[in-house]
Amino acid sequence: MSHKFEFTVYYEDTDMGGIVYYANYLKFIERARSTWVAQLGVDQLALQAGGLFFAVRAIQAEYLAPARLGDLLEVVSQRWSSTPARWILHQEVQRAGQVLFTAEVTIVALTEAGKPTRLPAELRRNSNP
Amino acid sequence: MSHKFEFTVYYEDTDMGGIVYYANYLKFIERARSTWVAQLGVDQLALQAGGLFFAVRAIQAEYLAPARLGDLLEVVSQRWSSTPARWILHQEVQRAGQVLFTAEVTIVALTEAGKPTRLPAELRRNSNP
Amino acid sequence: MSHKFEFTVYYEDTDMGGIVYYANYLKFIERARSTWVAQLGVDQLALQAGGLFFAVRAIQAEYLAPARLGDLLEVVSQRWSSTPARWILHQEVQRAGQVLFTAEVTIVALTEAGKPTRLPAELRRNSNP
Amino acid sequence: MSHKFEFTVYYEDTDMGGIVYYANYLKFIERARSTWVAQLGVDQLALQAGGLFFAVRAIQAEYLAPARLGDLLEVVSQRWSSTPARWILHQEVQRAGQVLFTAEVTIVALTEAGKPTRLPAELRRNSNP
Repeated sequence: MSHKFEFTVYYEDTDMGGIVYYANYLKFIERARSTWVAQLGVDQLALQAGGLFFAVRAIQAEYLAPARLGDLLEVVSQRWSSTPARWILHQEVQRAGQVLFTAEVTIVALTEAGKPTRLPAELRRNSNP
Repeated sequence: MSHKFEFTVYYEDTDMGGIVYYANYLKFIERARSTWVAQLGVDQLALQAGGLFFAVRAIQAEYLAPARLGDLLEVVSQRWSSTPARWILHQEVQRAGQVLFTAEVTIVALTEAGKPTRLPAELRRNSNP
Repeated sequence: MSHKFEFTVYYEDTDMGGIVYYANYLKFIERARSTWVAQLGVDQLALQAGGLFFAVRAIQAEYLAPARLGDLLEVVSQRWSSTPARWILHQEVQRAGQVLFTAEVTIVALTEAGKPTRLPAELRRNSNP
Repeated sequence: MSHKFEFTVYYEDTDMGGIVYYANYLKFIERARSTWVAQLGVDQLALQAGGLFFAVRAIQAEYLAPARLGDLLEVVSQRWSSTPARWILHQEVQRAGQVLFTAEVTIVALTEAGKPTRLPAELRRNSNP
């Protein structure tokens, strides 16, 4: 099960090195996750109103090649595994098929008080191929 | 002469008030300007390689209503006036026709040393209706 | 009545033009306002827990000269006027006394539902010289 | 060999979950690295003018507890190892001694064309205890 998400690099994403600032890749892959989660039927606003928040627990990322202003990029996301407590994804940022950035991301669900709780059923149910 | 640009509000855009952080509207309208400028045939990367940079000289903005996570927004940009030295735009951020944010933005062109210079001809030529 | 706030320009603040990205000046002056408001005895976290949010209603900004990586900058903030409903500030970003950016900022207080409400008394009381 | 860097959490750093947005921790630890590198005598602006850029090659991060508005945080950075080609750091974000975030970061130096090159001597020389 996988998901594709396209976006463009804007001026705000760049730094004085002339390339995309390294922290911004985490924004890009989060846009893709939020889009995917919404498509799976999960309403993050409603969840938060009910006191459930998604949180990134861990990330392992590699920066392979830089992106630049105007690049049309694609985030390709794949489910690695999911349990009631953890959703582990592999996410890549690609440009015309070339992998620029790769990350393994572990997502958990937390209550308002910050306690771990069960992930929404949609993430597990739909993520079975 | 006007331009429309659609985008979505992501988690990165929000703040702890639960709405879009006020500085991020300047990112949104810049995405719209860059897209418009590219469609007018101006290659910002080539210009910069040649030592010409766009810079915002002034902005007058009003915040009318907040945007929230998941909102599909539209930047509507209109040329107010343009001279060889200045490009003045009116830009609005709208949600389903409701105006959330409005700005009058003055753009100039600068050399690498920061001296004012002539704006690219495309901006003036194409901006004559 | 005025307030000074020092900060440094980091890589995250720059863009591919080699200077500070224009939206980030709004972050800088907000850091100064939050620091000032806290020093006046206003606890933003407690206010929000009680359903009161500060919001920028309008901003008029001029960009006079660029800031660069490593610059030690100062935000100089002055109260222009304040009523129960509006707090109007003049804020400048300076480098060694040179003004790089200037803004007139109108702040309002809103309820959770987005209705205008009275500003905290500390802002008005303390802002009388 | 280690380095400490203090900073405060501002509104811009938060998201609608009421805590610091996950990508912003990468900004925080980069501020600490830049400050450290400058203290070691490395002038990033001069290096870039000479065509050498630092780049993050890999990062392994864990998010242990959230930071909130107004928190006074500290980045504690330690050299793990350094070779002519790679500088590997362990960096933690702490609040009053509690570790909120931890990262192992691999830094490389690149030419303007994106080819790996030798790291500045100061990073290796000074990093021998």
